[in-house]
Amino acid sequence: MAFRETLEKLHTIDRESRHLEKALAVLRWDQETYLPEKGVEERSEQLALLEGIAHERLTSPETGQLLSGLGSTRENPGGDEKLPALERDFLKTLRRNYDRAILLPGDFVSAAARAEGLSQAAWVNARRDNDFSVFLPHLVKMIDFARQKAVYWGWQDNPYDGLLDIYEPGMGADAIAAVFTPLGQRLSALLRKIASKPRPDNSFLLAEFELENQACFSRDLLKRLGFDSQRGRLDVSAHPFTTILGSDDVRITTRYLPRQVLSGIFATIHEAGHAFYEMDLPAEIRGSCLADGASMGIHESQSRLWENVIGRSKPFWEGMLPVLRSYFPAALFQATTDDFYPAINLVEPSFIRVEADEVSYSLHVILRFELERELLSGSLNPAELPAAWRSKMKELLGVEPETDSQGVLQDVHWSMGAFGYFPSYALGNLYGLEFWQKLKSDLPGTETLIAEGNFTPIRDWLRDTIYVWGRRLEPPLLLKTVTGKALSSEPFLAYIESKYAGIYGA
Amino acid sequence: MAFRETLEKLHTIDRESRHLEKALAVLRWDQETYLPEKGVEERSEQLALLEGIAHERLTSPETGQLLSGLGSTRENPGGDEKLPALERDFLKTLRRNYDRAILLPGDFVSAAARAEGLSQAAWVNARRDNDFSVFLPHLVKMIDFARQKAVYWGWQDNPYDGLLDIYEPGMGADAIAAVFTPLGQRLSALLRKIASKPRPDNSFLLAEFELENQACFSRDLLKRLGFDSQRGRLDVSAHPFTTILGSDDVRITTRYLPRQVLSGIFATIHEAGHAFYEMDLPAEIRGSCLADGASMGIHESQSRLWENVIGRSKPFWEGMLPVLRSYFPAALFQATTDDFYPAINLVEPSFIRVEADEVSYSLHVILRFELERELLSGSLNPAELPAAWRSKMKELLGVEPETDSQGVLQDVHWSMGAFGYFPSYALGNLYGLEFWQKLKSDLPGTETLIAEGNFTPIRDWLRDTIYVWGRRLEPPLLLKTVTGKALSSEPFLAYIESKYAGIYGA
Repeated sequence: MAFRETLEKLHTIDRESRHLEKALAVLRWDQETYLPEKGVEERSEQLALLEGIAHERLTSPETGQLLSGLGSTRENPGGDEKLPALERDFLKTLRRNYDRAILLPGDFVSAAARAEGLSQAAWVNARRDNDFSVFLPHLVKMIDFARQKAVYWGWQDNPYDGLLDIYEPGMGADAIAAVFTPLGQRLSALLRKIASKPRPDNSFLLAEFELENQACFSRDLLKRLGFDSQRGRLDVSAHPFTTILGSDDVRITTRYLPRQVLSGIFATIHEAGHAFYEMDLPAEIRGSCLADGASMGIHESQSRLWENVIGRSKPFWEGMLPVLRSYFPAALFQATTDDFYPAINLVEPSFIRVEADEVSYSLHVILRFELERELLSGSLNPAELPAAWRSKMKELLGVEPETDSQGVLQDVHWSMGAFGYFPSYALGNLYGLEFWQKLKSDLPGTETLIAEGNFTPIRDWLRDTIYVWGRRLEPPLLLKTVTGKALSSEPFLAYIESKYAGIYGA
Repeated sequence: MAFRETLEKLHTIDRESRHLEKALAVLRWDQETYLPEKGVEERSEQLALLEGIAHERLTSPETGQLLSGLGSTRENPGGDEKLPALERDFLKTLRRNYDRAILLPGDFVSAAARAEGLSQAAWVNARRDNDFSVFLPHLVKMIDFARQKAVYWGWQDNPYDGLLDIYEPGMGADAIAAVFTPLGQRLSALLRKIASKPRPDNSFLLAEFELENQACFSRDLLKRLGFDSQRGRLDVSAHPFTTILGSDDVRITTRYLPRQVLSGIFATIHEAGHAFYEMDLPAEIRGSCLADGASMGIHESQSRLWENVIGRSKPFWEGMLPVLRSYFPAALFQATTDDFYPAINLVEPSFIRVEADEVSYSLHVILRFELERELLSGSLNPAELPAAWRSKMKELLGVEPETDSQGVLQDVHWSMGAFGYFPSYALGNLYGLEFWQKLKSDLPGTETLIAEGNFTPIRDWLRDTIYVWGRRLEPPLLLKTVTGKALSSEPFLAYIESKYAGIYGA
């Protein structure tokens, strides 16, 4: 078969595989937003069927033959060197997806899926009843399945690296530890320092904020950030998320809580950051496997950049507080940026990751990284996990949860076997600040732009510098290409230390 | 292969085929309700891919072999006579779906789909510009494709019957004409009689009714009718519809117009009638091809029964007017049932089918039936259609549209090649009143139940008598089984003549 024709066929297989993924995303989005209560059971059957069809099509022998026909192998995934760079990147990504899928035996996949279902159900009960022992046998199985999966993929020597590679291609546990260790030390030190300072007053934010007005403000905010409502939507779900239902159909969700007005606002900004990445991918990779974020961590760098670096900055609220006040004139009658800015940046170590402030957040992640690394290497016995959790929590954050429900049982990830996922959350902070440093040097007057509500130059820079690559470059190379530098915790730490010195006094 | 095993395999193929249909329904529902504007293009690619997969799976040689293995052939679709009745009905329906799909050559299906796309686009322009000549060449092609389709299915002698059979299995054009002819005559006569009577005052319903309150009333109404919101939803779309996203996920839509409060109310009741049918199908056929209405017309009998026979009755508003008034106290301050009942049953022949009153509605359908029958037989030249339309409109309804946009170009159906669909709308009226006559004799005091807002006995009767059959019986047999009688226009005419004599004076 001619070169061109083979490539065309692979593009068709890939495009259809993406269409199926997006059809699945429609069904899942609907499940989280509008599905009637009793429709859940049949929906899961529909999802399982479509997932099976998608898997079957991607792993057909034809895909393998076409890839080989272009010289793409496990060792040389990019294929023939005469191919244009874009096509080589395409082959590399498709080969990766294909190998990932075919290397797992069907029996293993079904057994893992069944075990995962039971594990999640057990975790729900364990958390509800604060009884780790109910979850323990399932955790042991999930660790085994995860390790086995990494082995199937060829990571017998370092299975945890194989799992990290799912979420953060090209990053290993050693490289992560090298940045997480100084990060943990300096954040812990900062936390201790802040604990000795007077606590800013945030009581005016704990009043009741009417839900309908919260929703109106979130829609207004999205518009001001430049979210294109012809190519996306904002809806409400129990847990905020972003999902891709089409190249021109990127949906985000948020939630509104009457006495936690900040929760809905920052969830909206966070998810908008994810959405901008997807909406601003270049046309040349539209609909292909390259039309995706570089990694979970790079994606998170965007959401956290918008949420924290921009969204929790003083210039941002110099522009936006009058807007927010127009929706809540009574509650915010007297609030100035000088009150508002410290109140939304309150630092208060707590047990729960998803409620953590900007200083504590990465510490929650480091804790999980260190523990799951030991679990996968076998140096930590899963039965000892609750005790290890409490002691590391004390060490890093200075607090100790009273119950396992507030501690080791708080996150869903391990119950799903998703080991290796957590580090991306904190890597996002680090990538984000490296990007931001470069953006600020390329784009002087960033703070003024933010205060004026003129986000276009920032979005353009992110698009032309980062999003333009889609999934073509692995995180280390993307970072190097964009900033000229390697991964480091310095820019993030410099930003955090300076910001919170400003708020809490030197 | 063992008998039992073959049957199980067919049930799996069927169940998966239904899951795919419902996944498609999710994507289409989303397109009509929440899809961002620019997402339409990629959504149509997702739909085309899933439709292709669904078709490919249903028409796999395996399906044909399994059907034959149980003795199911085109001539004897129910298969082996030793099989239980339910399984024979299942085989019959699956065989019908399978044959329908495999008898059409792939080239023909793609050519027809392409032509249909062009035809619909031309129709949109023709209607906008009131220029039938733009649509004419496409109409000619749509007639050819429809006729050819019927020939592929084995209806070379009477292609129009073959098309009617899609929507109304077991009903032919002669049988329909036999009931439509007296129906047309007596409805036309009634219309003329009503035209000479004073027009009831409906001006109080033309005020502005706040949209949010309309939505609240519709939700309240659904609750009172017994619509189970754990198994369905109400949303808003440009054209109201009902769709099945799962056995426990039946969704309806309506629309709210500020100066046409009745539009949203009756669309809600109409679609609820469709939804009740689907929600109350028996558990034994859940998820199979038998879990469906008996025909388009039988489905329409339910929507029109709830909308008109129940929803536009005096007892209904004796109970419901105080509820409606509580949402619109100012506009309905003085309205009594004696004002409201004639106002919602105003008879006024117009050009547009979808806005027609209960007396005119069937006449619009008869007009289309007679014209499309002639188009398919070749006795009417498509170029003559606009003139034929106007003259038949004058004859049946006593009015003549000024433009083709308000006449022959008003409906989308023919532009999609959906000849044979229209009769179901009026057959629904006839089936509905035959069922209703039987229901009233089985369930004395129906009017009292309706006035009290106690709809449960009515829904139970419909469920136990009609819905219990799902798609197992073709309409003539279902009618016979439920009422002991054949199709007739008498019960409908008796109902209409008596109701409107009451409103307009003898």
